[in-house]
Amino acid sequence: MAIAEVSIIPLGTKTPSVSKYLARAFRALRQEKNIKYELTPMGTIIEGDLGDILRIVRNMHEAAFGDDIMRVVTTVKIDDRRDKTLTMRGKIESLLKESER
Amino acid sequence: MAIAEVSIIPLGTKTPSVSKYLARAFRALRQEKNIKYELTPMGTIIEGDLGDILRIVRNMHEAAFGDDIMRVVTTVKIDDRRDKTLTMRGKIESLLKESER
Amino acid sequence: MAIAEVSIIPLGTKTPSVSKYLARAFRALRQEKNIKYELTPMGTIIEGDLGDILRIVRNMHEAAFGDDIMRVVTTVKIDDRRDKTLTMRGKIESLLKESER
Amino acid sequence: MAIAEVSIIPLGTKTPSVSKYLARAFRALRQEKNIKYELTPMGTIIEGDLGDILRIVRNMHEAAFGDDIMRVVTTVKIDDRRDKTLTMRGKIESLLKESER
Repeated sequence: MAIAEVSIIPLGTKTPSVSKYLARAFRALRQEKNIKYELTPMGTIIEGDLGDILRIVRNMHEAAFGDDIMRVVTTVKIDDRRDKTLTMRGKIESLLKESER
Repeated sequence: MAIAEVSIIPLGTKTPSVSKYLARAFRALRQEKNIKYELTPMGTIIEGDLGDILRIVRNMHEAAFGDDIMRVVTTVKIDDRRDKTLTMRGKIESLLKESER
Repeated sequence: MAIAEVSIIPLGTKTPSVSKYLARAFRALRQEKNIKYELTPMGTIIEGDLGDILRIVRNMHEAAFGDDIMRVVTTVKIDDRRDKTLTMRGKIESLLKESER
Repeated sequence: MAIAEVSIIPLGTKTPSVSKYLARAFRALRQEKNIKYELTPMGTIIEGDLGDILRIVRNMHEAAFGDDIMRVVTTVKIDDRRDKTLTMRGKIESLLKESER
């Protein structure tokens, strides 16, 4: 199990608004069953098996393309810990707990 | 007004757990008044004036160092839009609205 | 054909030096035939088929783990353009040409 | 002294080619005296004082804007090591040396 953040930027859009194209990628993500995700103002965070994560990132990346989009810059950051289970919630809780010390 | 995501990674920690060091950076952020922030499982998102953002990122980066930490890798991603006001909440709402179409 | 940048950070390395662990990932990359790569001071840039890139990134990520490394943060940034062929060299040449205008 | 990688993405550029806008940022960098830099196919790597780096990144970010560009996404990754001096060349040499073992 790993946690990954995905950020997709379509280039060559007519206006600076890109949510229309990001929505295509998000719909590709929503079809997935065995994955937890969380939207943030800067990307999407996914928790799951590393193989699943990479497959889904590729699907999201492909979904952003279209007749109107010929270039996509996708960034994925994977946090993969193998001595204990990482979860999205656990990471935030650890930080908040440490911050109170 | 811009939105930025900050991620801080301390290197050379005794164990794979790093929340103790991230907490130092988070405490530096919490002291700030004129800034909105949001913790995510992969970083911290900040909304504010670009000058403030860069100053705070530097403070967070410095705070992560200590006698026990001699190397820090900090990543900042700035989303800066000047034809309309970006907000953390507005960005998520736009994406969700487009996804329903 | 896409271009991607891969950056691998091992956590919990006892000392701030990490090149020993990055070398494992780099050796996994060097075994590949159908790929061009370039080392930079901040990561490795790969040019090739998107499927190959994702497979190689996974191999590099896995190679960084070991008995001594239980957590790895890997970042991949993919620049994928489909109206014309992107190359590592072409991208730098375009920028330099535009800069002389 | 730190090493940083800067990547600038202008949004709403009508075509997928963005080197015209990146050239503005690059010209802002070239005016600097006390800094070493290196272009890569995925960004620009800068070696220098952390304060200088952040100032230059801001200048590069601002330079990318114009009447035709109302949104810019800039990513900066800072590698800052304080127990010994990091250099762009030294980082690559360490990795290559370790890879031969």
